[in-house]
Amino acid sequence: MSIDAKLAELGITLPAAAAPIANYVGYNVSGNLVVVSGQIPLKDGRVAFTGKVGVTVTPEVAKEAAALCFINVMAQLKAACGGDLGRVRKVLRLGGFIAAPADFTGHAPIMNGASDLCVAVFGEAGRHARTTIGVPSLPADACCEVEALVEISLD
Amino acid sequence: MSIDAKLAELGITLPAAAAPIANYVGYNVSGNLVVVSGQIPLKDGRVAFTGKVGVTVTPEVAKEAAALCFINVMAQLKAACGGDLGRVRKVLRLGGFIAAPADFTGHAPIMNGASDLCVAVFGEAGRHARTTIGVPSLPADACCEVEALVEISLD
Amino acid sequence: MSIDAKLAELGITLPAAAAPIANYVGYNVSGNLVVVSGQIPLKDGRVAFTGKVGVTVTPEVAKEAAALCFINVMAQLKAACGGDLGRVRKVLRLGGFIAAPADFTGHAPIMNGASDLCVAVFGEAGRHARTTIGVPSLPADACCEVEALVEISLD
Repeated sequence: MSIDAKLAELGITLPAAAAPIANYVGYNVSGNLVVVSGQIPLKDGRVAFTGKVGVTVTPEVAKEAAALCFINVMAQLKAACGGDLGRVRKVLRLGGFIAAPADFTGHAPIMNGASDLCVAVFGEAGRHARTTIGVPSLPADACCEVEALVEISLD
Repeated sequence: MSIDAKLAELGITLPAAAAPIANYVGYNVSGNLVVVSGQIPLKDGRVAFTGKVGVTVTPEVAKEAAALCFINVMAQLKAACGGDLGRVRKVLRLGGFIAAPADFTGHAPIMNGASDLCVAVFGEAGRHARTTIGVPSLPADACCEVEALVEISLD
Repeated sequence: MSIDAKLAELGITLPAAAAPIANYVGYNVSGNLVVVSGQIPLKDGRVAFTGKVGVTVTPEVAKEAAALCFINVMAQLKAACGGDLGRVRKVLRLGGFIAAPADFTGHAPIMNGASDLCVAVFGEAGRHARTTIGVPSLPADACCEVEALVEISLD
């Protein structure tokens, strides 16, 4: 099944790659590596999930937010691939940042919101290395942020 | 001296590469680059060093914890190398995350627990670039976490 | 215009690449990729900008600090390029870390201190992907830290 068909099956419509909120670009390509900028849970141009996990955001909602971050990662990646996500050979690494207080310990299941979607969409090629950490705050009060390093095939 | 002999000399027995605590893999390989997932101070399947540095964990103990993180990095790296750590050409970068309060400033000597071990084991090939930051919290209440990017030789 | 001429036009004199404050190196090179270690706002051997943004450091001053971090990134990069910054083909990614309290939301404009300078110096080659996060604390009480991944041309 193509990646586009898989996305359709999952009921996901990728947005246009979000314009960065400052002086940078959404992705860069070097050889067959794509570096995707940290994506926050933007939807329709606004941050859809703000606040701190475990305080004003439940873990369940934060997991949805992480999935939305990954949808935005895929939008950037699609642009990097000239529109063809079938060129993704391996999602090498996801970095996950969870805005939460010092006593929070449940980062891993929240980041699975992004990781589960990555594996659901890309299958074996979506099995990624990962680093997840807690942070006190994120740009625009986002409750989480996800970045990626991806290997693609050359045209 | 081989890396295995060096590890033996240092009294280090590498564990089996730890199973990730969520939906990701411990490492990925792209060309001659290995991306190692963030490793927490797991020992025998449990987090051996929890808490906050400077509050419930002394800097000395945290340095041990960082060394344990790097032992877990090496375990992943060995698996990535098909069991032969002699294939490590350069530890390009270590990322270090220290769980500590806002007034903490002693991150660098703690991360040296990982860095010193890296150089002791790999010699010149272990001289790495590094980024170390403080964080409010880490998965499973780990007091520190270490990730790596490594260049290896192809088979 | 050469990069050196551009730096002169901007009134920037690059310092010697700062010696790391612990057991690591300022950069590593793998193929045509340069990994630059996290750089804090060191000037003349001391941390010129300490404290927390939004508490003891204003956003305006923090933006200056981020620019200084990037000056230190360029100093490392110049060393990695054997003195010739004209070999920079693409600044692939900047990572930005802003020491700030939990209620801080203005990370992006501060990190633009680094990003604006990157684009001013390198032009199209300076258009980078970026991840910016808040942190509770940084080594040596730095108020921000910047790391980089850069593609260079081979000699």
